[in-house]
Amino acid sequence: MRVEIWSDVACPWCYIGKARFEQGLQAFDHKDDVEVVFRSFELDPQRAKGDTVQVLPMLAGKYGMSIEQAKQAEARVAANAADAGLGYLAEGRDHGNTFDIHRVLHFAKTRGKQNELLDLAYEANFADERSIFDDDRLIELAVKAGLDETEVRTVLADATAFAADVRADEQEAQALGANGVPFFVLDRKFGVSGGQPAEVFTQALQEAWAAHTPALKLVGEAASPDGAVCGPDGCEIP
Amino acid sequence: MRVEIWSDVACPWCYIGKARFEQGLQAFDHKDDVEVVFRSFELDPQRAKGDTVQVLPMLAGKYGMSIEQAKQAEARVAANAADAGLGYLAEGRDHGNTFDIHRVLHFAKTRGKQNELLDLAYEANFADERSIFDDDRLIELAVKAGLDETEVRTVLADATAFAADVRADEQEAQALGANGVPFFVLDRKFGVSGGQPAEVFTQALQEAWAAHTPALKLVGEAASPDGAVCGPDGCEIP
Repeated sequence: MRVEIWSDVACPWCYIGKARFEQGLQAFDHKDDVEVVFRSFELDPQRAKGDTVQVLPMLAGKYGMSIEQAKQAEARVAANAADAGLGYLAEGRDHGNTFDIHRVLHFAKTRGKQNELLDLAYEANFADERSIFDDDRLIELAVKAGLDETEVRTVLADATAFAADVRADEQEAQALGANGVPFFVLDRKFGVSGGQPAEVFTQALQEAWAAHTPALKLVGEAASPDGAVCGPDGCEIP
Repeated sequence: MRVEIWSDVACPWCYIGKARFEQGLQAFDHKDDVEVVFRSFELDPQRAKGDTVQVLPMLAGKYGMSIEQAKQAEARVAANAADAGLGYLAEGRDHGNTFDIHRVLHFAKTRGKQNELLDLAYEANFADERSIFDDDRLIELAVKAGLDETEVRTVLADATAFAADVRADEQEAQALGANGVPFFVLDRKFGVSGGQPAEVFTQALQEAWAAHTPALKLVGEAASPDGAVCGPDGCEIP
């Protein structure tokens, strides 16, 4: 079974939702048969690369609240993170464009290191004061995830590298009706929107499992007797 | 869109079917949106590792035909391969257990090199007289595909490495109703059995595309108002 998770490294509920999903997955009987794939979704695609802002004034401006209210809101998110076993700096974080991070996450996928890099990037963004909206920091995280530094630099230097993968994920999110993240899609049949409690993920996994491996509609079999197969008893001979 | 292909390196119709599928994919308008994943299926799982046999006497024994008839059958398969632009030795090939090859193909997937290794393994098995049922030869192919020799040796030396992945693929094939290979599954909704002509694959891709991105059934949204999301306008604040 396959779970696709649309998310953004700049999204607190994605960070918390990933941990809650993983907790829900642990309670699922067929957890070893679940493949997880991460998909790109930018929260702030209009922001220019390099234009980073502090989170508290950004929140205050966006929601028309005082800095003190923004601090309280962030403290509530931090409490949710702590409940999920995650570190979270309620003050001092910054926010920026995540397009390059998504490109490198797609590169990491080709090396089997996507989950490792995503976990490191979340932790770096939410639990560490140093900015991740910086190539050197991103390279440091990528190397820590097991990627080759030269290859990561090459990806970062070429703005077109994996750009189409990021865009394709975002278009697919739209087609699937996801306007916010995290957004979880199970076997392209079931969806979970938001960083729900762990038990909701377990329930969704159970529902999707019950609907799994449906009868396939066969294409071409009747029309094409020359679609030869090999089986345990040998191959069809033309 | 996702296409999963169950196949075995020892399966001539899988070799030919892969080329036909790729030709059919080229004629498909949304080919850049198709992700291809290879799944394991052993044609001859009962055969012990190291117990390799020549293909012609094996065919003769299996089908109760003469060696001359087996040669003619293989020549017809070779003609199909040639039509697909592939080399094929009608005589001199051997046959054996492919479990370790599947394990290494699963390892290659974690490094983004599965397709490369599969192409090399097919070519080596069908168009080159040297046996691929031999660790050194398999390592040579894996390195040519871009894998690290030490890592491949480690995988081969540990018979449990990626073994569960191979078994899981095989169980899934059974659950999907595939008794022979190649078996193509599109978005877990459409199936194509056998090395069908390229146009059948194009048609199957078109049908699957039309059925793609269906409405998802949302799990947990109503029940859990605390499934917070972040969107372009910001994050929900608890």
